[in-house]
Amino acid sequence: MTVDARLIALDWGTSSLRAYLLGDGGTTLDEVAKPWGIMAVPDGDFAGALNLLTGHWRQERPDLPAIACGMIGSAQGWRETAYVRCPAGPDDLIAAMRRATPPDADIPLIVPGVALDGALPDVMRGEETQVLGCLARLPELAAESTLVLPGTHSKWASIRDGRIASFSTYMTGELFSLLSRHSILGRPAQAAGKEPRNDREAAEAFDWGVRTILDNPRRGLSSLLFSVRTQVVLSARLPAANSLDYLSGLLVADELRNAIDPGRKTSADKFALIGDPALCGRYQRAFELFGAGEVPAITNTAQAGLWRLAEAAFHGNPVS
Amino acid sequence: MTVDARLIALDWGTSSLRAYLLGDGGTTLDEVAKPWGIMAVPDGDFAGALNLLTGHWRQERPDLPAIACGMIGSAQGWRETAYVRCPAGPDDLIAAMRRATPPDADIPLIVPGVALDGALPDVMRGEETQVLGCLARLPELAAESTLVLPGTHSKWASIRDGRIASFSTYMTGELFSLLSRHSILGRPAQAAGKEPRNDREAAEAFDWGVRTILDNPRRGLSSLLFSVRTQVVLSARLPAANSLDYLSGLLVADELRNAIDPGRKTSADKFALIGDPALCGRYQRAFELFGAGEVPAITNTAQAGLWRLAEAAFHGNPVS
Repeated sequence: MTVDARLIALDWGTSSLRAYLLGDGGTTLDEVAKPWGIMAVPDGDFAGALNLLTGHWRQERPDLPAIACGMIGSAQGWRETAYVRCPAGPDDLIAAMRRATPPDADIPLIVPGVALDGALPDVMRGEETQVLGCLARLPELAAESTLVLPGTHSKWASIRDGRIASFSTYMTGELFSLLSRHSILGRPAQAAGKEPRNDREAAEAFDWGVRTILDNPRRGLSSLLFSVRTQVVLSARLPAANSLDYLSGLLVADELRNAIDPGRKTSADKFALIGDPALCGRYQRAFELFGAGEVPAITNTAQAGLWRLAEAAFHGNPVS
Repeated sequence: MTVDARLIALDWGTSSLRAYLLGDGGTTLDEVAKPWGIMAVPDGDFAGALNLLTGHWRQERPDLPAIACGMIGSAQGWRETAYVRCPAGPDDLIAAMRRATPPDADIPLIVPGVALDGALPDVMRGEETQVLGCLARLPELAAESTLVLPGTHSKWASIRDGRIASFSTYMTGELFSLLSRHSILGRPAQAAGKEPRNDREAAEAFDWGVRTILDNPRRGLSSLLFSVRTQVVLSARLPAANSLDYLSGLLVADELRNAIDPGRKTSADKFALIGDPALCGRYQRAFELFGAGEVPAITNTAQAGLWRLAEAAFHGNPVS
């Protein structure tokens, strides 16, 4: 299987480690994953964890190079890489990668994160690689586009001339997790946990949350959030079992309304969503309800981004 | 001590039970409190808890009447009272109070909560009584004003002709608690927990949070929240020990910007803050930074509200 192997590509974040064995042209030959995010690596032993997960790929090719992106390059990771400043393109990232020197031959090449300076600074680690992978697969977006990466900390990246010109972070996923697990808003759904859910009704509740944001353009999130409770408890219009879908609709639409003007014609061909298909599906639906048309979604762009960076870094031939 | 006692007034909420012994004219003769919110009453025995806390007040006057406001009137409380609909004034609340009938002589008279119907319904329980107490003490606000009750679920009540015409809830306090205890934003402050704090620097961090909202009128909360992290970790402009003051400034100012237009002349004499003095102080500072002048703050209005309702309900003489 490993005869054509060229590169071990690692997407190593806060909550998981995903490893891909890539062959010629960046095709995926094999993949493995563990919940070994940087704070959950067994015994804090990054080299040991990597060897446990991918050691079998190196049995025939001990010199198979490795490249990693994500929080593995943070101060809490394996080896810190300094942020590259916006505007950041592939060349900037490549120049700032921490190279594996001979004594550290086992350490993968680590892709730096990207920072935005200014009055409101911002940071990303890992998403820059997904952005590059997306642009490699959808090159028509390289000249000018907005790429949206939903997640715990969603990123909206403005692309100009193949580089990340600027970006901003939304804590949408983390707010959803906190509110559904720890706040008063999560209680009805927890109590209803064992009721069978109806997919159509869940989708309707999500739509309703999006429309509530659209119908109340001047009203802030911290006020609209309380409607998750009142629509269940007071009006009884929202079934408890679907209340978190409504919450999700509110949060996703609140993110969107910061970036696009509802009603104003938005050119959907200048947007793309990157990430988990189910999550991207929710954002696609919200874009649609905002009147922004059909936004494409792609998944697994980290491999393409890591391949592109490794190709350049290893002068077109990852295996030296 | 109890010779002049006329009424036991109870502010019984989600997290605490505060009991006041009131004398002629509603003066406070004594007060006691326990963390016996409705979900934390020992053995769920409301009558037993009340007797433990206030039984000594009734030794000489077993017929001393009692009145209660707050979550004690909810479905999870002692006895459910239906919500009164907006516009809600003293007469509406009095008519809807659950009266203690002879077999229930120990049960206090319970003040109903207030509900706002419509596309975005809203509810309060307890705050309606604080509003009445505030209007009893500051009658010049009765004709037209906005009363702000900061807290876990902050309420903004529009007053017209002595009644609560409408209101809205902001989850500011609960968001602060969730984000500081459970999110990535709370970690630097937790790590810095033992450093001595500097009050002036803490106040500056709060002001900075407020100004960040003012400087970014088009940017939503879930995006600005991430700056709590980046200003500590990336720019290093925000000391970790003060990062939660900055977070508090963001959240309080986000609440304010929903209600008042920065820059537009706001008549501060039409506003009042009701609640804990330290918390009201933060809101006063934020009002000031919004250019809305000096907003008065008053505390302990529940007693005045309960006295006013009891006086009317017991025909001017609480002790029958």
